[in-house]
Amino acid sequence: MATLTCTASDLAPLLTTATTALNATALSEFLCGRFNTISTKFAETTYAVDNTYLLFSAYLVFAMQLGFAMLCAGSVRAKNTMNIMLTNVLDAAAGALSYYLFGFAFAFGAPSNAFIGRHFFGLRDFPSVSGGDYSFFLYQWAFAIAAAGITSGSIAERTQFVAYLIYSSFLTGFVYPVVSHWFWSADGWASPTRSDNLLFGSGSIDFAGSGVVHMVGGIAGLWGAVIESPRIGRFDRTGRSVALRGHSASLVVLGTFLLWFGWYGFNPGSFLTILKSYGDGGTYYGQWSAIGRTAVTTTLAGCTAALTTLFSKRLLVGHWNVLDVCNGLLGGFAAITSGCSVVEPWAAIVCGFVAAWVLIGCNKVAEKLKYDDPLEAAQLHGGCGAWGLIFTGLFATEKYVNEVYSGRSGRPYGLFMGGGGRLLAAQIVQILVVAGWVSATMGPLFYGLHKLKLLRISREDETQGMDMTRHGGFAYVYHDEDDPSIKPEFMMRRVEPVNDASPA
Amino acid sequence: MATLTCTASDLAPLLTTATTALNATALSEFLCGRFNTISTKFAETTYAVDNTYLLFSAYLVFAMQLGFAMLCAGSVRAKNTMNIMLTNVLDAAAGALSYYLFGFAFAFGAPSNAFIGRHFFGLRDFPSVSGGDYSFFLYQWAFAIAAAGITSGSIAERTQFVAYLIYSSFLTGFVYPVVSHWFWSADGWASPTRSDNLLFGSGSIDFAGSGVVHMVGGIAGLWGAVIESPRIGRFDRTGRSVALRGHSASLVVLGTFLLWFGWYGFNPGSFLTILKSYGDGGTYYGQWSAIGRTAVTTTLAGCTAALTTLFSKRLLVGHWNVLDVCNGLLGGFAAITSGCSVVEPWAAIVCGFVAAWVLIGCNKVAEKLKYDDPLEAAQLHGGCGAWGLIFTGLFATEKYVNEVYSGRSGRPYGLFMGGGGRLLAAQIVQILVVAGWVSATMGPLFYGLHKLKLLRISREDETQGMDMTRHGGFAYVYHDEDDPSIKPEFMMRRVEPVNDASPA
Amino acid sequence: MATLTCTASDLAPLLTTATTALNATALSEFLCGRFNTISTKFAETTYAVDNTYLLFSAYLVFAMQLGFAMLCAGSVRAKNTMNIMLTNVLDAAAGALSYYLFGFAFAFGAPSNAFIGRHFFGLRDFPSVSGGDYSFFLYQWAFAIAAAGITSGSIAERTQFVAYLIYSSFLTGFVYPVVSHWFWSADGWASPTRSDNLLFGSGSIDFAGSGVVHMVGGIAGLWGAVIESPRIGRFDRTGRSVALRGHSASLVVLGTFLLWFGWYGFNPGSFLTILKSYGDGGTYYGQWSAIGRTAVTTTLAGCTAALTTLFSKRLLVGHWNVLDVCNGLLGGFAAITSGCSVVEPWAAIVCGFVAAWVLIGCNKVAEKLKYDDPLEAAQLHGGCGAWGLIFTGLFATEKYVNEVYSGRSGRPYGLFMGGGGRLLAAQIVQILVVAGWVSATMGPLFYGLHKLKLLRISREDETQGMDMTRHGGFAYVYHDEDDPSIKPEFMMRRVEPVNDASPA
Repeated sequence: MATLTCTASDLAPLLTTATTALNATALSEFLCGRFNTISTKFAETTYAVDNTYLLFSAYLVFAMQLGFAMLCAGSVRAKNTMNIMLTNVLDAAAGALSYYLFGFAFAFGAPSNAFIGRHFFGLRDFPSVSGGDYSFFLYQWAFAIAAAGITSGSIAERTQFVAYLIYSSFLTGFVYPVVSHWFWSADGWASPTRSDNLLFGSGSIDFAGSGVVHMVGGIAGLWGAVIESPRIGRFDRTGRSVALRGHSASLVVLGTFLLWFGWYGFNPGSFLTILKSYGDGGTYYGQWSAIGRTAVTTTLAGCTAALTTLFSKRLLVGHWNVLDVCNGLLGGFAAITSGCSVVEPWAAIVCGFVAAWVLIGCNKVAEKLKYDDPLEAAQLHGGCGAWGLIFTGLFATEKYVNEVYSGRSGRPYGLFMGGGGRLLAAQIVQILVVAGWVSATMGPLFYGLHKLKLLRISREDETQGMDMTRHGGFAYVYHDEDDPSIKPEFMMRRVEPVNDASPA
Repeated sequence: MATLTCTASDLAPLLTTATTALNATALSEFLCGRFNTISTKFAETTYAVDNTYLLFSAYLVFAMQLGFAMLCAGSVRAKNTMNIMLTNVLDAAAGALSYYLFGFAFAFGAPSNAFIGRHFFGLRDFPSVSGGDYSFFLYQWAFAIAAAGITSGSIAERTQFVAYLIYSSFLTGFVYPVVSHWFWSADGWASPTRSDNLLFGSGSIDFAGSGVVHMVGGIAGLWGAVIESPRIGRFDRTGRSVALRGHSASLVVLGTFLLWFGWYGFNPGSFLTILKSYGDGGTYYGQWSAIGRTAVTTTLAGCTAALTTLFSKRLLVGHWNVLDVCNGLLGGFAAITSGCSVVEPWAAIVCGFVAAWVLIGCNKVAEKLKYDDPLEAAQLHGGCGAWGLIFTGLFATEKYVNEVYSGRSGRPYGLFMGGGGRLLAAQIVQILVVAGWVSATMGPLFYGLHKLKLLRISREDETQGMDMTRHGGFAYVYHDEDDPSIKPEFMMRRVEPVNDASPA
Repeated sequence: MATLTCTASDLAPLLTTATTALNATALSEFLCGRFNTISTKFAETTYAVDNTYLLFSAYLVFAMQLGFAMLCAGSVRAKNTMNIMLTNVLDAAAGALSYYLFGFAFAFGAPSNAFIGRHFFGLRDFPSVSGGDYSFFLYQWAFAIAAAGITSGSIAERTQFVAYLIYSSFLTGFVYPVVSHWFWSADGWASPTRSDNLLFGSGSIDFAGSGVVHMVGGIAGLWGAVIESPRIGRFDRTGRSVALRGHSASLVVLGTFLLWFGWYGFNPGSFLTILKSYGDGGTYYGQWSAIGRTAVTTTLAGCTAALTTLFSKRLLVGHWNVLDVCNGLLGGFAAITSGCSVVEPWAAIVCGFVAAWVLIGCNKVAEKLKYDDPLEAAQLHGGCGAWGLIFTGLFATEKYVNEVYSGRSGRPYGLFMGGGGRLLAAQIVQILVVAGWVSATMGPLFYGLHKLKLLRISREDETQGMDMTRHGGFAYVYHDEDDPSIKPEFMMRRVEPVNDASPA
């Protein structure tokens, strides 16, 4: 595209004339002044449009924290509701301070080395042209707190609150920012946007974070849940799996829909800007179109996974179960998050279909190994997240990869699309490195907490529920027994829910 | 507005001069190159702004599905909560696949005939300049799933899940897309945007779908509910109406507010673009202002209907009932949805006032006829939706009709505004045709399912609740009797939480 | 910035030449026509971008009403859930009509005197270039209903519904609009945007309404709660405080997160426009950046207050209490609302830290004085709101004050930032005046209702709960006792709501 800006010395030679009546200098200044003003106003318009887009996307991603809170609350037993909701509120609150103080600096502090960032601590010297604006910080904070939210699901209903405070700060403030630096910052060693020395000539493509966010949260949760072992009663004396059902399906569905809603900020929002042309200009095609396509691939992957889960579970278990469908849906979303921007809509359907079976398979394995994860978080975010990275290495199209990761021609793309195996290799490296890094950092941390008797709550507390023993009381009071005006004989007549013997 | 683009041959003749020093060709290329670049950048800016607007509007409309889920869940008895929420999740999930595969093609595949579209199956050859972008597909999908959501309310608590799967696919994949083609696509026979042969020289104005969405969902629900007859116990032996109360007013209010929130995507979002001037340029007035006005008319209609319902019900029944107020509010929204963009704010107040009485009247008739609709969906979406179409034929203003449906001068407008009866006639035709089409397609479908014993659940299942018998268990477990670690004597003693003596 | 517009007479003199071949008039018209078109298109683009920003911000602020509804519902006892939710729905619904008819006119009807506005009743002569567009009306309506929502929390569980209808209309229609006129309209006597005679040469800076919204709602609630005295059982015979716990912590957390989500419309949205440059143009810096910074300060203040509350309450009470953390969070938000746009992110942390202690202190005082406020609304919105105004007077930076309140050089700024005491003086005047005005209007109103026996419900109604006696039934039915198919002996044990015999 031609440049708009010009100076008087560009235009004046063109207007040199024998007569003096034509004031070439004045004319040139007149015209160039206007063209320069126009150029400036386009730059400002672009900033305003892109910031509007990014800010509202950030708000949607933040809404996912509410989704997590409701999903987690509904998935645990009523006696631990206050506990799990507190961790969700604190993921956001403590995460804001630690990400402000150092997390963002570790992740995106530029210039930096390939391993970790080192600028913008406490948002010093921020914003800057190269470092991004406040909207970018807010958007990345909303991502950081999502990872911690995933982990708290895995270790729900049996973890000391002080252990939560420790691992959550460490995860949001250090472990996650380092991973996001590697794969998303312009300096990261495996980033597809670094200027040279790309991993396998490609860098790994984890557009919105199947690996960076979901696998990090899922693998951290895996170690926590393994080290503290299952909840009391989760497997009976004969080793048979016993479902400890969550207390409210309504909250689960509410949370799932809110996560779906927020995912439109998570995936399409990861473009960060919307006013960017891809072509020669003037046609309908540009980043705005790629963003719409990303919203569509995200939708199709989740929906396919939900339907696959519905019918699979109907065959396997015999029920049409909304809770399974919700988890399948989220598994599809976690999987498409990596490749959402670089695959065709039909490929997203493949992604979702496989994701549903990955989740079912992981859950089978987990049950076999007597692994207890109240939210299926390690299976869902870890398993489906890893599948998502591989999927991208198989189905990324040439055209979309080169548009979305522009400025470098002839990038490797999906193996099944004819793009060779280099992208897939980079994706597999990412899976291994993320798994290794999170295991090497969070594993010892959880083990240390375990050895210090800081990880798991006492048997009594677990039986009675953490809300009563640690958080000031039960979450629900539907009948006002604590109201001194109600007579005691009234209380005696209370009816209780019928026990549910379902195997799921 | 003057054109911005120009070619060197336009400008060169102006600059022809006797001296050779003035390089007319170079100057012309210099200037025209810049003007053409500016024109391209404005086009790109417009795409980015309009896509931002449409995408976030689509996200809001999607949030209505969450609203429906919570409204439906709260309005049924606890024993059927999992069932109804599953249908709401599946409306969105199955709707995404069927709308991607063929629904969108039937509705907006262009070019087409007046009855049904025939391009873009599986989003083939999409996006294109004339066919819209991905954001348009996403937006229309969110509308399609709303119709199915309405229907599932009418037949709640007594319908087999397999029947739901069948009618829902048929409605979202065929019945609804055809209706939206007729009234909304540029080729539809009754569309106000077709280039010639407008119905009564006008086409019917159903801006955001009082008829296309709400009547379609409501009438489909009407046939389902009539054919399967009322829930057990809904009318006692003497024929007296017995309220089968929903299990959670909190969920109803939550759902209602979410629908209200989402309606700001539904009505103002139906403009599809925001960066469009209406005037000679440079003034404050354009589509952005019409969009704001549409948000205001939507708000006023719903709020007036809510207040009218509050006081009417207080007089008629004696209670200040929040559930009635919620339904009144939604009735006002369903009614204004047709004319929201073409009426004055004061007229929206008239619309809402009448809508409240239409809903009250329809409910009276339903009770008389022993019609059982757990969500009042046929009354609310069918009745108030039909009133909305008539309202538009009465109150649409000349100025707004010609701005919103531009490109054709002297359109008919509202009868009461001096615009004659042609618009009203088109609106009445729409009511009759929508009612006829939906009855002719969904009526036989429901009847066939009924004859095949696939429609209604067994008496035992209905009494016990579908969650226990079909969906894996009861939705709520507030007291952990299923926890094997709890000793029976503990359970006996347990009543409710200990009083919290904290000073806060 | 140079002007873009020009006329033929500007350009023609530059091109006067001895030869006739150069058609100066035609060239000038050619060029100026294009530049004028460009200028118009930029104006239109700016309208579209700013309206998109403001409309979606308004939708977020509206979502706060849903947040209030869920927060209030969860914070009261189950027996009053329908009552409090009805007030929240009606704040929005009745507020829409009263704000449309006269509230907006009192607040922003221009031109006006310094005390009250007097144009735009019923949106007459609206929109206009100087008076704003429909999006501005919608945004201000969403603010107006927030104030009434705060007040209904203070007087929950013991106020007659008719009293609610009266005070709510008065507050939204008159008391609040007048305050917003004083501090936010261009004519208000204490507004920082008036053209001359600024209060202390500054005007008070209440950017998004710590005083205008939160103090107004909180002080109105204070008078209501004081005049009707505590709920039965709130203080026992010995005067000891007895917690009357809300019935659902899940609803409280849901409401809190929704308020957080909506606050991103409340604070950053209060800029009203996003496409505005602050500098010489072309750099990254402009209102879009200030808006992002405002989102960050808002986040940090709330999060710091939440963490401060968590640890303080742990030390003071011994619990890790999510309900306290939620209130602390909201207190931090209420405090930063005044200064969010003019302080550095680090200062927001100071703001939140102090806000948490202000809330703890106010609650201690309330308990001492036997003041009963079920939502802590007066303490939270009144106390933290007042602190927010003072905080702005201490920490507002010179640069940001002059950018955000531009068009007047050398404005006073925060005392601690070296800006002298004039801004602080204006802030203190605002606190006193808001407290005085609300006390002088709402105090007598509540007292009059009290004297007329219209304020407080009867002892019997309070004990039984308002839902059963006034609103048609209990909010929850988890066990289907009203299902006649269930055997009568089961029904005998029924504790809860009487069947609602209403015909709807």
